[in-house]
Amino acid sequence: MIGHSFMGAVHSQAWRTAPRMFELPFDVDMTVVCGRDPERTARAAERLGWGDWADDWQQVVRRADVDVVDICTPGDSHADIAIAALAAGKHVLCEKPLANTADEAERMAAAARVAAETGVRSMVGFNYRRVPALAHAAWLVAEGVIGEVRHVRAQYLQDWIVDPEFPLVWRLRRERAGSGALGDLGSHLVDLLQHLTGERLTGVSATQATFVTERPLPEESSGLAARAGTRRGQVTVDDATAFTGRLEGGGLVVVEATRFATGRKNAVRIEVNGSRGSLAFDFESMNELHLYDAADPETEAGFRRILETEPEHPYLSAWWPPGHGLGYEHAFVHQVHDFLTALADDASDLRPSFADGLQVQYVLEAVERSAADASRWTSIG
Amino acid sequence: MIGHSFMGAVHSQAWRTAPRMFELPFDVDMTVVCGRDPERTARAAERLGWGDWADDWQQVVRRADVDVVDICTPGDSHADIAIAALAAGKHVLCEKPLANTADEAERMAAAARVAAETGVRSMVGFNYRRVPALAHAAWLVAEGVIGEVRHVRAQYLQDWIVDPEFPLVWRLRRERAGSGALGDLGSHLVDLLQHLTGERLTGVSATQATFVTERPLPEESSGLAARAGTRRGQVTVDDATAFTGRLEGGGLVVVEATRFATGRKNAVRIEVNGSRGSLAFDFESMNELHLYDAADPETEAGFRRILETEPEHPYLSAWWPPGHGLGYEHAFVHQVHDFLTALADDASDLRPSFADGLQVQYVLEAVERSAADASRWTSIG
Amino acid sequence: MIGHSFMGAVHSQAWRTAPRMFELPFDVDMTVVCGRDPERTARAAERLGWGDWADDWQQVVRRADVDVVDICTPGDSHADIAIAALAAGKHVLCEKPLANTADEAERMAAAARVAAETGVRSMVGFNYRRVPALAHAAWLVAEGVIGEVRHVRAQYLQDWIVDPEFPLVWRLRRERAGSGALGDLGSHLVDLLQHLTGERLTGVSATQATFVTERPLPEESSGLAARAGTRRGQVTVDDATAFTGRLEGGGLVVVEATRFATGRKNAVRIEVNGSRGSLAFDFESMNELHLYDAADPETEAGFRRILETEPEHPYLSAWWPPGHGLGYEHAFVHQVHDFLTALADDASDLRPSFADGLQVQYVLEAVERSAADASRWTSIG
Amino acid sequence: MIGHSFMGAVHSQAWRTAPRMFELPFDVDMTVVCGRDPERTARAAERLGWGDWADDWQQVVRRADVDVVDICTPGDSHADIAIAALAAGKHVLCEKPLANTADEAERMAAAARVAAETGVRSMVGFNYRRVPALAHAAWLVAEGVIGEVRHVRAQYLQDWIVDPEFPLVWRLRRERAGSGALGDLGSHLVDLLQHLTGERLTGVSATQATFVTERPLPEESSGLAARAGTRRGQVTVDDATAFTGRLEGGGLVVVEATRFATGRKNAVRIEVNGSRGSLAFDFESMNELHLYDAADPETEAGFRRILETEPEHPYLSAWWPPGHGLGYEHAFVHQVHDFLTALADDASDLRPSFADGLQVQYVLEAVERSAADASRWTSIG
Repeated sequence: MIGHSFMGAVHSQAWRTAPRMFELPFDVDMTVVCGRDPERTARAAERLGWGDWADDWQQVVRRADVDVVDICTPGDSHADIAIAALAAGKHVLCEKPLANTADEAERMAAAARVAAETGVRSMVGFNYRRVPALAHAAWLVAEGVIGEVRHVRAQYLQDWIVDPEFPLVWRLRRERAGSGALGDLGSHLVDLLQHLTGERLTGVSATQATFVTERPLPEESSGLAARAGTRRGQVTVDDATAFTGRLEGGGLVVVEATRFATGRKNAVRIEVNGSRGSLAFDFESMNELHLYDAADPETEAGFRRILETEPEHPYLSAWWPPGHGLGYEHAFVHQVHDFLTALADDASDLRPSFADGLQVQYVLEAVERSAADASRWTSIG
Repeated sequence: MIGHSFMGAVHSQAWRTAPRMFELPFDVDMTVVCGRDPERTARAAERLGWGDWADDWQQVVRRADVDVVDICTPGDSHADIAIAALAAGKHVLCEKPLANTADEAERMAAAARVAAETGVRSMVGFNYRRVPALAHAAWLVAEGVIGEVRHVRAQYLQDWIVDPEFPLVWRLRRERAGSGALGDLGSHLVDLLQHLTGERLTGVSATQATFVTERPLPEESSGLAARAGTRRGQVTVDDATAFTGRLEGGGLVVVEATRFATGRKNAVRIEVNGSRGSLAFDFESMNELHLYDAADPETEAGFRRILETEPEHPYLSAWWPPGHGLGYEHAFVHQVHDFLTALADDASDLRPSFADGLQVQYVLEAVERSAADASRWTSIG
Repeated sequence: MIGHSFMGAVHSQAWRTAPRMFELPFDVDMTVVCGRDPERTARAAERLGWGDWADDWQQVVRRADVDVVDICTPGDSHADIAIAALAAGKHVLCEKPLANTADEAERMAAAARVAAETGVRSMVGFNYRRVPALAHAAWLVAEGVIGEVRHVRAQYLQDWIVDPEFPLVWRLRRERAGSGALGDLGSHLVDLLQHLTGERLTGVSATQATFVTERPLPEESSGLAARAGTRRGQVTVDDATAFTGRLEGGGLVVVEATRFATGRKNAVRIEVNGSRGSLAFDFESMNELHLYDAADPETEAGFRRILETEPEHPYLSAWWPPGHGLGYEHAFVHQVHDFLTALADDASDLRPSFADGLQVQYVLEAVERSAADASRWTSIG
Repeated sequence: MIGHSFMGAVHSQAWRTAPRMFELPFDVDMTVVCGRDPERTARAAERLGWGDWADDWQQVVRRADVDVVDICTPGDSHADIAIAALAAGKHVLCEKPLANTADEAERMAAAARVAAETGVRSMVGFNYRRVPALAHAAWLVAEGVIGEVRHVRAQYLQDWIVDPEFPLVWRLRRERAGSGALGDLGSHLVDLLQHLTGERLTGVSATQATFVTERPLPEESSGLAARAGTRRGQVTVDDATAFTGRLEGGGLVVVEATRFATGRKNAVRIEVNGSRGSLAFDFESMNELHLYDAADPETEAGFRRILETEPEHPYLSAWWPPGHGLGYEHAFVHQVHDFLTALADDASDLRPSFADGLQVQYVLEAVERSAADASRWTSIG
């Protein structure tokens, strides 16, 4: 595993837990974790349960005792690490977004294609697909339960930078993060809505906003938290992005990603309206899926609050009895399960692939181009 | 009152009830109702409690025993009736949207300006302003409770035409209705979001969709219900409209109006995120306002579900004890109260004015122009 | 109508509105309202829309131009007025609870039986039966949708006397009100749960509490509001009552009525669990019924939030289009409709009858006896 | 660890995870797991991550390499194992309820007292105390935020035996389980409500029901699931228990525990109304606490939906960023943290102690005695 802060901690919990709760086709050995700061990396290895630590990722991705490389670093290093790992014959699980630019993502997708010819596989970590309620939702759409998709409204709402004195952490700098709310949050929505509907976006019209243009430089940061210093710098990414779009089947899509939705901490919300029913989800109540089935008797129709905690629901048979909900990290456990199972069984199940990640990148770039060009409709692909 | 179908029935209930629940500055005499079909109009007068009926609105608006003309007809007749009534010296309450085109609305606003010089007043019936929770929300924003507005997301979701065999009623024909979801539903959202924030939209970028382009012609219709015939015709309005926009203060706005949100019957939803707090409302729970106050202690902050049923809430002291909720029609009772009170007290309180209604019309036209021009950003006013 | 404060105002709104929204078998003439204070009664007549006023109910119930007597006074006068009215050949609609004691209620039920022999009818005003969601719920249980009833949990939660300085209004004095939360709130729950399940309570075990035993005497009161004076008096009723019970079919019932549930204004909540499904309702969201149907596919089962605003729902075809909710007072409009319709059609529909009201009284008395006897199980009738 | 089915799996996940997410005063070595069936126990050790396995708990509790014994067996074996382990000088963490009878619980509490004199400690596993929202709720009550407690209504609703053909598993047999819904579910509520309020129950009046008295004997069972055979046997425990009670401070308590609440999977609900505010919780939305603060301005008061996912909330600083919720198992991770921390720091924090567990047992016995004696009020302690 490369990287050991927020995402590294979540992935570690997933690697530790998956073999305990699921039947997996491989034994999991948490061989080595890699970071830039030796001291902090050594501590992380100890705390997170890795057998070894290192500070040079280029060596790590070539180690003979490594079969899988899990990339949990910021987006600007994804391309280099992933391409090197694939070249070294290691399977790669790469955090989202695939890269900071479409150019990097193209190189990664190309490398993945080449590697696949020799059986070396890759996947992008859009974890929300593996939330049981959302996996169930995708299944219901695919089964035709809600009919043709007419509307998708998707929002990813956070509020951690509402305070103008919150410091200028790396996620607010274009050179590290690629973009702001768009890449960090919007990429999840783009992957999710395309995954749920089984349709791709064909065009978008976008508006972006940066409400606070200058912030104190951080003195120290950890995860999403940081302490402000006295000097200031320019915010070079979007605080919020909104766009409308259309799906291949004609559905109308409205997407909004923001870090300025005061009071909303991590609200990933998606509603899909179809010709025969609707689905709604909010990550603030992540164990619930709301389903409206227009086939119900007219007087008894209503959104059903399905508790996604029954053994028949996706992934749930591995966990606790009915009604005992899961949390944020469980989607990552499921990701490990799906990744390893697909490695053993059928590589075509290794979705989202790097090609999928690249297509998301194309959407993000179209959004940025549209926003920069007076919101003009911008086709994708 | 001109018109006596759905809106006429609601307005009648409001005129009957307001004097019983509120202290009003004038006695209310429900003098005459006017409709095109004599027989149906006579029945409506009897049922709805009007003293007389008529089938010629031009005579009605000139009657000496009429002081106020309440216009409840489809949008294509608003301009003619309102202008004639104002010219005859009658105060006018006109249903929304003010008109089907900005041109008509301009003529109405001009007539209203002229009439006002002789003390003849006018108001547009954007009833949602008078829902207590929303009146309270506007007050909270004006008091600065949520600080500067960063985001507005507003949706008006219905589903009554999801079935492609639902007939081509007048609301689906451009020549009668002006537009589809945009004018009927979106106009409410535009008025509401500008009213709540106290800021006007400065520009928009829009996308419109018509999912079902041909429908059976109706044989008979009443309210929103109708029976399909065998011949078919073209749907000439939008089934759904989505747009992004910016407010004067820089806030990012996302609006969606649709009649294809399966399972959503009349969901008027609005959320406003400010620098110090947030507000959220859904008409499906119309007696609730959700307020997030960032000044609350960090561990105890959360969206408060305020039941808008206390005597201290707007309009509530006139009604029932705490906890006894109101319904849809009550906003119209409050509209009558506010209209008559402002007539007696201070005409500047007669809001939304025809000028306000015209400005909404400008927004709607900008939305349509943007949608017709590849979603290009379109400035307003 | 006898009485013109809170209940009188609601009933007046119902009498005014019912003929405008429903087809009724009789014309409604709001002939005369009666109260103790001439001046206030005259004002009430004017404001509420009654043709005449009076201060002697004994004359009123004998007036030749009166066909129906609507009793909206406190419980201690119900028996005298109702018995006199029935004796005078007037149909009677009497507010709940039927009386303050079972003895009074027995005399009323006897009078009702005698009157019925000459076609003079009577009904008790348990209005919650006429909330559309609850009427629908009763229909669903009767249709067998949820199977055999296993559980009922019913709560009526208010908080208007949490403050120990709230004055000792008549509702807190046994001689006027009969009991406290039990009779005022619990009587609604008893009627409602028996009506919904179609089963009677066979026994109860109860606990009662009076948290604040002394309060300032009121100087003036109106509705539920009052101003405290300086002298103090004893609270002689229960602040809260809780009881367990069993239904004829073996179902386990848990009931709680209180005026000390801080933050709950008028929360009438009822959940019924059956062998094949469940129903849940909360008056704070009065236009919703929640239905769990165990016959739904296992992975898609969940409580459906049914918006009770469709034309197919009870009473709704008379009102507004789908999604446009009703309020507290509408149950009273429906009560007028049902009362008059049953008078014309089939007197057996005149439910809840005085006999039903008497049976509720028996339950309330059993609750009080049990509470006074160490919660010992107490059988009912 | 003794026992390795449902509870054993959850505890294992907790022992594995706690050292990775929290700073603990001890290293955790998962030494040995013990079960009756050697083959299944060996498989469990492998899967759950235990270093060794055994089939004789009497040897295990004496092993020199064991410092802590974690008891996850059915209630009938708790006393023997715990007393032996304490006698052998091992700290004990024992699943709830402490025992099947008060007699057993008394012997355990006595053993715990004796052991404590030599520094050997013990704790009962009432895990719901360690759900962050409930830990926060207890803190808020202790801080006086809601004032004096007037009401507690607590429900634990499941539905896994609604089907009369569900087999007669050990949880439905008195000799193994002690009681039914009462001990399994009600014990959680009793501990929780006393913990939240900081007050003990002084008396109860109870009603119990067994709706299905005969069931097929099981052929095989695992966790809560089982397969029915053809022979039948008697259900010897309660399907549902309801009781009213009073707290030391006079608060009125209503408790209901059932396995027949169709559609409710694991709904642990508790609402506490105090003189200055209220708290409400539902495990179906376990990351939320609802707080009503009567000190809020009257027009802005409402139940706040606090997302218990902020770093300032109990236990949360060890986990993910704001808004990323936890699941069922996390309360067990917190239990391990609290247990080990208190072992190192201050044994008086080792709550709930065996004495606490015994007191819960006294309440359960009082409930059973009351139910058996016509619901007569039964004092506790």
